[in-house]
Amino acid sequence: MPSYTAPTKDLQYVLHDVLRVSQSDVPGYAELEPDFTSAVLEEAGKLTSEVIAPLNAVGDAEGCTLENGVVRVPTGFQDAFDQVREGGWTGLDMPEEYGGQNMPYVLGTAVGEMFSAANQAFTMYQGLTHGAASAILTHGSDQQKDTFLPKMVSCQWTGTMNLTEPHCGTDLGLMRTKAEPQDDGSYKLSGQKIFISSGEHEMAENIIHLVLAKIPGGPEGIKGVSLFIVPKFLVKEDGGLGDRNGVTCGKLEEKMGIHGNSTCVMDYDGATGYLLGEEHKGMRAMFTMMNEARIGVGMQGLAQADVAYQNALAYAKDRLQGRDVTGVKNPDGPADPLIVHPDVRRMLMDQKSFVEGARAFILWGASLIDKAHRAEDKDADGLISLMTPVIKGFLTDEGFDMTIQAQQVFGGHGYIEESGMSQFARDARIAMIYEGANGVQALDLVGRKLAQDGGKHVMAYFEMVKNFCTENKDVEGMADFVEPLKKASKDLQAAGMYFMQNGMKNPNAALAGSSDFMHLFGHVCLGLMWGMMARASLKALEDDPSDAAFHEAKLATGRYYMTRRLPATAMHLARIESGADPVMALDAEAF
Amino acid sequence: MPSYTAPTKDLQYVLHDVLRVSQSDVPGYAELEPDFTSAVLEEAGKLTSEVIAPLNAVGDAEGCTLENGVVRVPTGFQDAFDQVREGGWTGLDMPEEYGGQNMPYVLGTAVGEMFSAANQAFTMYQGLTHGAASAILTHGSDQQKDTFLPKMVSCQWTGTMNLTEPHCGTDLGLMRTKAEPQDDGSYKLSGQKIFISSGEHEMAENIIHLVLAKIPGGPEGIKGVSLFIVPKFLVKEDGGLGDRNGVTCGKLEEKMGIHGNSTCVMDYDGATGYLLGEEHKGMRAMFTMMNEARIGVGMQGLAQADVAYQNALAYAKDRLQGRDVTGVKNPDGPADPLIVHPDVRRMLMDQKSFVEGARAFILWGASLIDKAHRAEDKDADGLISLMTPVIKGFLTDEGFDMTIQAQQVFGGHGYIEESGMSQFARDARIAMIYEGANGVQALDLVGRKLAQDGGKHVMAYFEMVKNFCTENKDVEGMADFVEPLKKASKDLQAAGMYFMQNGMKNPNAALAGSSDFMHLFGHVCLGLMWGMMARASLKALEDDPSDAAFHEAKLATGRYYMTRRLPATAMHLARIESGADPVMALDAEAF
Repeated sequence: MPSYTAPTKDLQYVLHDVLRVSQSDVPGYAELEPDFTSAVLEEAGKLTSEVIAPLNAVGDAEGCTLENGVVRVPTGFQDAFDQVREGGWTGLDMPEEYGGQNMPYVLGTAVGEMFSAANQAFTMYQGLTHGAASAILTHGSDQQKDTFLPKMVSCQWTGTMNLTEPHCGTDLGLMRTKAEPQDDGSYKLSGQKIFISSGEHEMAENIIHLVLAKIPGGPEGIKGVSLFIVPKFLVKEDGGLGDRNGVTCGKLEEKMGIHGNSTCVMDYDGATGYLLGEEHKGMRAMFTMMNEARIGVGMQGLAQADVAYQNALAYAKDRLQGRDVTGVKNPDGPADPLIVHPDVRRMLMDQKSFVEGARAFILWGASLIDKAHRAEDKDADGLISLMTPVIKGFLTDEGFDMTIQAQQVFGGHGYIEESGMSQFARDARIAMIYEGANGVQALDLVGRKLAQDGGKHVMAYFEMVKNFCTENKDVEGMADFVEPLKKASKDLQAAGMYFMQNGMKNPNAALAGSSDFMHLFGHVCLGLMWGMMARASLKALEDDPSDAAFHEAKLATGRYYMTRRLPATAMHLARIESGADPVMALDAEAF
Repeated sequence: MPSYTAPTKDLQYVLHDVLRVSQSDVPGYAELEPDFTSAVLEEAGKLTSEVIAPLNAVGDAEGCTLENGVVRVPTGFQDAFDQVREGGWTGLDMPEEYGGQNMPYVLGTAVGEMFSAANQAFTMYQGLTHGAASAILTHGSDQQKDTFLPKMVSCQWTGTMNLTEPHCGTDLGLMRTKAEPQDDGSYKLSGQKIFISSGEHEMAENIIHLVLAKIPGGPEGIKGVSLFIVPKFLVKEDGGLGDRNGVTCGKLEEKMGIHGNSTCVMDYDGATGYLLGEEHKGMRAMFTMMNEARIGVGMQGLAQADVAYQNALAYAKDRLQGRDVTGVKNPDGPADPLIVHPDVRRMLMDQKSFVEGARAFILWGASLIDKAHRAEDKDADGLISLMTPVIKGFLTDEGFDMTIQAQQVFGGHGYIEESGMSQFARDARIAMIYEGANGVQALDLVGRKLAQDGGKHVMAYFEMVKNFCTENKDVEGMADFVEPLKKASKDLQAAGMYFMQNGMKNPNAALAGSSDFMHLFGHVCLGLMWGMMARASLKALEDDPSDAAFHEAKLATGRYYMTRRLPATAMHLARIESGADPVMALDAEAF
């Protein structure tokens, strides 16, 4: 039976030693004092490790069931969901006027990591609600906000995102779901949506579906797509629940993982919907949800890697097998623990250096979102827009690889469902796919984000890395971080240069290297995070040696990342610079 | 519903254009004429794609069940197993005197790939029998051979390997299963074995368990382990079946994949066993099975990658989504097929260049085994001994990554069990673990095989690569292959040099890089294979242009491997040369 320990200490370290949030002038950050965030994180840690994590295996084994249109969630989910609601966790970073606590996004993200790590399938019920509520908050009319947000912020009602249809996923221009305008200003929606997470269940009184559909007579393709609010139960003027709307769950999908979440085929049969935002501008409104969701999915990559790592580490310390070749470490036992073996350590260090680096990366990204929204910082907005596909794509690809490595530490026992390691891997797998498959993230990064605002944001990123290196190059102990980071950043710039010089003539020259570029970028980002953490830990060691073991471990883990993981940038650059020809040489028929 | 097409043409290409088997003077190879091997491969292809592959999803969905000690296999398995037996496929490369067909191992391997690709879980029933029969063939007495081999070669009786116990996997010295000598020369075995593939079922009349156990009073640890033959039903002197032996299946494991194979906890309760080989020399006898099994498992990595690739390719050609950025390719359709997109092609080319390279590698390895056994070539024996961990570890790690990529091509549909892509990934996952987890393979490679016979075999390998490069450097069209191969081989030699210079002082300096070394070696091996294939295809294009499209595609695929995959060697070298310090810096308590 796997366990989960909330990484409250490490989260506190990133928030305070590295990001120094309470010293920031971003509105709302002043109250993020260490004692306050510690209290929040400890409370969330207790709930996630004691209540939610134990339901993870239950959710996997039982899954959801559909009978006569009713979806049953696994045993214990309803109780746990009630506890989450009662604790006010669902509206942590939502506006107070709708019942939220108006905390910064960075704190919501720190808490969110724990929820995802403890039970990804369970946490999706509230996660999608949060995304849907954000879209209503940004694009809804006052009446829509007043009607839906208080209930969604508290998760009394949950939310969903309805994009995909059987014949179209990424290419939403092919969409067939129709929304016929009615005399009263509402619409009647008809069509089928698939892969709808949390699409149907009875843990909430109502479910608010956000649905993309086409209004007949509108523009062709993606430009004719609008976004609608379609409640499971119609809402009366007094806010009470009215009739059942014409939307039903036709089928539950059998999936590789996240069995505890109901992945539904949703059938819309003349369902009443309300336009959210402007006609034919549905994609813009949807992207409010998508961008938030993408960062949340990147976080899932980190979260599954962390819980898998925690269990692999415990196993490696406990399981006795073989002897340390440099000398027996456990003379009283029949063998030494796995952790003495260099290749086991390599796997653990890969995981540890990824998890801690990714945690800093996500929280740094969340702080950019706060800057963008709370301080209306346009540069921060541009930078997080650039980073979003890297956070989603890189952290979920690597996060999955790390769950696989954690499973590998268990040997044959990792392949048996009982150990729980298989579930971590199977659950982590979806994060590479949903909210835009990682190839689509890479395309977004290289095809759109790099050149956004004239390439201003990527230049700002390079400048930031350069400044970090300049500021720290003579700081004692920082050479181990500055030199590799410089080299990796040079690889990244060379890749960007290659795209600029070749992508105009032949877009495929850039696109053939898009996935490698996303990974190259991700490594540089984690390299920078390790540089920042090294700086913070060196300073902490100077200021107060009482927690030296923690900071020494940070430095050692960071040096591991710089020497063993960062050299991947050169490989990605070599692939990128080989251009489109090797990738595109074969005609489709010649495969 | 996924499908499988046997790669008979590509197998023929490797056997005849690349390895030129029928021109070899290895005994038995003269009869491997193209027409003959074609007939065998076509027949096996029909059976695997039409009968065995359709049962793959059935096996996954139904799994095996245990009731009152009886294991039921999935629907259709018994019929298919009968067809496999009746076709004589189980004894293809076994001696004629025991009912086999005495074909070279290389042909058995070509056929074996198809079986594994079509249905890995199903094929394990005969695969483990083959391994057990090989051990009896090599180490058994004449009486043992006469008693067991005819039935095992035909799979009238199946076989198993019993190594692992709950507290010991890799470290078999910790074993507790006991074998008490009896007056009649037999032994009574007591203990528990776990993870026993095909451990119990009713598809065969009898099951012959090969079991490692300790004879009381023997040497401590691994030196006191002996191997025993323990039949499910005792065999009477007339060869008929006698009493049920004291061995039962106590539990079936719930696993991530290979559900169609019964993975059993086997309880030995005073079961009658017969010593196979010498007392306390059980590991030697077991390694006869293990080495064969390891190559077979490497093949599984390739096989799952191939079937997953085939389905990804079909999907990429069929699924319409988005438009080619360089110009519409399917103007009459609502969108272009996925395969127009560079990042989709990257994934497909990764898979294709791996699968075809790995196929050549495996068959080349099998031809070394034939040279070693049939021509008693000691150098070939040393070389395949060196290659075995590379074949097992590299091909299963990469093979799994490729099934994950194939699944990725399907987007959300790949995560739904219905598409079958999840099963390929879940089944492929075990190959990285069983028959020695890949970390153990890397340890075997770096800790034992490199230095075997004074390092003679690795030097011979370097010499072979060097000769290939020298012979082909001026051949038109070969520069694209020779130059990258030279560079990669230099990285491999530098890594070997690093180990020599540092491993003596500190074994961890070598072991910390063992997994990277295995991957570096694997890439060089596939690079060499692509060099050999390029040479063969260039020659074929000269000799007979009638099949130009096939050979041009080979060359393009090979160039992809050389430019996009081989640059990984530099990254592995950089990691290796960073030594033990980053890996071993943290005390176990500091994690």
